[in-house]
Amino acid sequence: MSKVRPISGFPEWLPSERIVEQHFLDVIRETFELHGFASIQTRAVEPIERLTSLGEDTDKEIYAISRLAAESAGDSREPRLGLHFDLTVPFARYVLENAGKLTFPFRRYQIQPVWRGERPQDGRYREFIQCDIDIVDVGELAPHYEAELPLVLADAFSKLPIGPFRIQVNNRKIPEGFYLGIGLTDIKTTLRVVDKLDKIGPDKVSELLVAAGATAAQAKAALALAEISTPDESFVERVNALGVEHETLTQGVAELAAVIRAGAEHASGLMVADLKVARGLDYYTGTVYETQLVGHEAYGSICSGGRYDALASDGRTSYPGVGISIGLSRLLAKIMPTLSATRSTPSCVLVALADETDRARGMAVAAALRRRGIACEVAPVAARFGKQIKFAERRGIPFVWFPGTDDQGGDSVKDIRSGAQAPAEASSWMPPADDLRARVTT
Amino acid sequence: MSKVRPISGFPEWLPSERIVEQHFLDVIRETFELHGFASIQTRAVEPIERLTSLGEDTDKEIYAISRLAAESAGDSREPRLGLHFDLTVPFARYVLENAGKLTFPFRRYQIQPVWRGERPQDGRYREFIQCDIDIVDVGELAPHYEAELPLVLADAFSKLPIGPFRIQVNNRKIPEGFYLGIGLTDIKTTLRVVDKLDKIGPDKVSELLVAAGATAAQAKAALALAEISTPDESFVERVNALGVEHETLTQGVAELAAVIRAGAEHASGLMVADLKVARGLDYYTGTVYETQLVGHEAYGSICSGGRYDALASDGRTSYPGVGISIGLSRLLAKIMPTLSATRSTPSCVLVALADETDRARGMAVAAALRRRGIACEVAPVAARFGKQIKFAERRGIPFVWFPGTDDQGGDSVKDIRSGAQAPAEASSWMPPADDLRARVTT
Repeated sequence: MSKVRPISGFPEWLPSERIVEQHFLDVIRETFELHGFASIQTRAVEPIERLTSLGEDTDKEIYAISRLAAESAGDSREPRLGLHFDLTVPFARYVLENAGKLTFPFRRYQIQPVWRGERPQDGRYREFIQCDIDIVDVGELAPHYEAELPLVLADAFSKLPIGPFRIQVNNRKIPEGFYLGIGLTDIKTTLRVVDKLDKIGPDKVSELLVAAGATAAQAKAALALAEISTPDESFVERVNALGVEHETLTQGVAELAAVIRAGAEHASGLMVADLKVARGLDYYTGTVYETQLVGHEAYGSICSGGRYDALASDGRTSYPGVGISIGLSRLLAKIMPTLSATRSTPSCVLVALADETDRARGMAVAAALRRRGIACEVAPVAARFGKQIKFAERRGIPFVWFPGTDDQGGDSVKDIRSGAQAPAEASSWMPPADDLRARVTT
Repeated sequence: MSKVRPISGFPEWLPSERIVEQHFLDVIRETFELHGFASIQTRAVEPIERLTSLGEDTDKEIYAISRLAAESAGDSREPRLGLHFDLTVPFARYVLENAGKLTFPFRRYQIQPVWRGERPQDGRYREFIQCDIDIVDVGELAPHYEAELPLVLADAFSKLPIGPFRIQVNNRKIPEGFYLGIGLTDIKTTLRVVDKLDKIGPDKVSELLVAAGATAAQAKAALALAEISTPDESFVERVNALGVEHETLTQGVAELAAVIRAGAEHASGLMVADLKVARGLDYYTGTVYETQLVGHEAYGSICSGGRYDALASDGRTSYPGVGISIGLSRLLAKIMPTLSATRSTPSCVLVALADETDRARGMAVAAALRRRGIACEVAPVAARFGKQIKFAERRGIPFVWFPGTDDQGGDSVKDIRSGAQAPAEASSWMPPADDLRARVTT
């Protein structure tokens, strides 16, 4: 057996870091549920054919799976399966498969790992957790959902110790209509080039646009649009000032204004209209979202999504939707070093033992504490008390319980941080609310 | 694109079934944490070499993964990886990898999907969720942990709507010492044959034992041992009555008696000493556990485990442990038809809209309810109220909120099950505690 070692791109947390991760998962789940999103989970695998049917180049990222035994036996009767690389493709399939049993508009959240066979790099993993919300409807999707989704996200992020963040919103129809209005018809290429603005700067973008067939004036106009970023509806005036007219542009501007207006009303100061946001994926057709940690803009988006019209369709019926995905592993990779848990175990109390023959009594104390929601464990061994206290200390357990040790033979409990010890009964004692569960601190 | 269809062995739940599954996951997690187990999660993959190093025939079950792009490019520089088929092997690896950063004895729980490339059959899946607890120590593990683990399980199962269950406990040393005591030295084969007792009956077991080299008397004795099953320590007398003597047997009997004694004291009526329980996996060295649903014995064990001494070892140091694994997907496959959720969404309240222009007001009501932990959503469209109530009804949402509709222009809320409607303020109204969250009923 070779030595154990980490596998690049497959991160794992230590128990105290996992407490931080669980806190994030709990807050995100609770927020999603408060907003009426139902949980689903989809299988980890999809037919390869389905995974590769979206956009170009996605097959680069897919992990195929095969039965080891079948491989050696040359058995290939089963359809080829791959691990899902996001939660949107499996969700679209789930909607089609269960459409008759779901109520629409269907609000669902989904928190699961996904896998991509990419080269690992800073904040990019081969296995990582995504937390998705989507709302899909049958045939048509009301535009107010495009304004609602980033508010859910703002609510979740506001409860998490991630510092200031900025939700950047755009609408695909704006650049699309604008480009058509100035005579640029290769929208896909133009979007892809402009999307690199933050990385390569305006001069290089202009160069690439001209290389792709734009005139210098067209490139300049496209850049002028991309540079518009306002925390309120004033982006409308700035777009109008560019003097371009196109029906799609007008529609996109009105839709984005509605999203930004809802943001100002319900999540003040958290959303900006940012007209350079394009999102790579071809399936977005309206509002698109990205999210930056303020002060870590270069790290890129930690939460993205948008509206799609044709992702889920069985040929007769289509299910348009809008979704946002939090890249939890990516977010935690950035901020885990700034966070810690108050302890590395759920235990709030260690029940000490004076003698190994007291174990049954210690277990009864522990059972009484647990019945009232106090996490605890009985000491591994009836070592001297000093050693048992050290064992609690090493893991951050705040209280040590001593059965039958006070003057009247009753129990007592010690806060090992302050040293204060007091008589206590397992049927009634409660720790301070702050100590009941492990907490996350910055 | 081919038609969507389920993939055999990869089950998925509808939203209301997922609420049932989440209830089970929440209760199991909470119980594990109350007992002081820390959460970890391990990556889904391990080197194939590690997955195949345990026991015979395991390679039959493994799913190997490979990068689709690398495959076609003939790139094979990366180590071969496979999906884990249980959580014990990854946990053992995690302990070795992080030993310097963990505090021992280390109590951990782990709730994750695992994958096996088996032929799917009743209650056997290719992807399923396991919920594991293990306690590992360095060098030696105190035997009291073998008594503690099934108590944690009993605590979790007692809180779940699964009906009566029975934790069957044995100790590998009992059959091992007994077989040696009667001159049967091929312990592995004998254990494997006796393990089939419930499936093929005593006559067939006897036949197979004789075919494997046992005398008729030895086979009879082995069967007599396997047939011992007592809800208390009386199994000790019955073993003694068989008149076999061996040091390992004596030790195993004493250890099992301690486990059964703790069970009688702390989980009365839930544990039995069942001397036919063997568990297939070779790595168990002491206590072994299985769990049956009473009335569904033929379904087999829904929760199993045992003590192991050599699973995690880096050559110099070994980490003996004891663990139990709940086969959650397997358990739910059996009992899901007997359970239902009170609603198919987390939403407790639907905020109705008299007109689309009221949406901002409806969103403010929803935000106020959410601030106090009440899950809700705003109506998809300002249809007539009857239609909005129907929309809530279809998903089991118990309350519909009407902003600004009472005589004084205040809000009112309707319990759509009883039809009772009353004035309410979003800043203070609370639903009955029973309605706050979706519940699971039998």
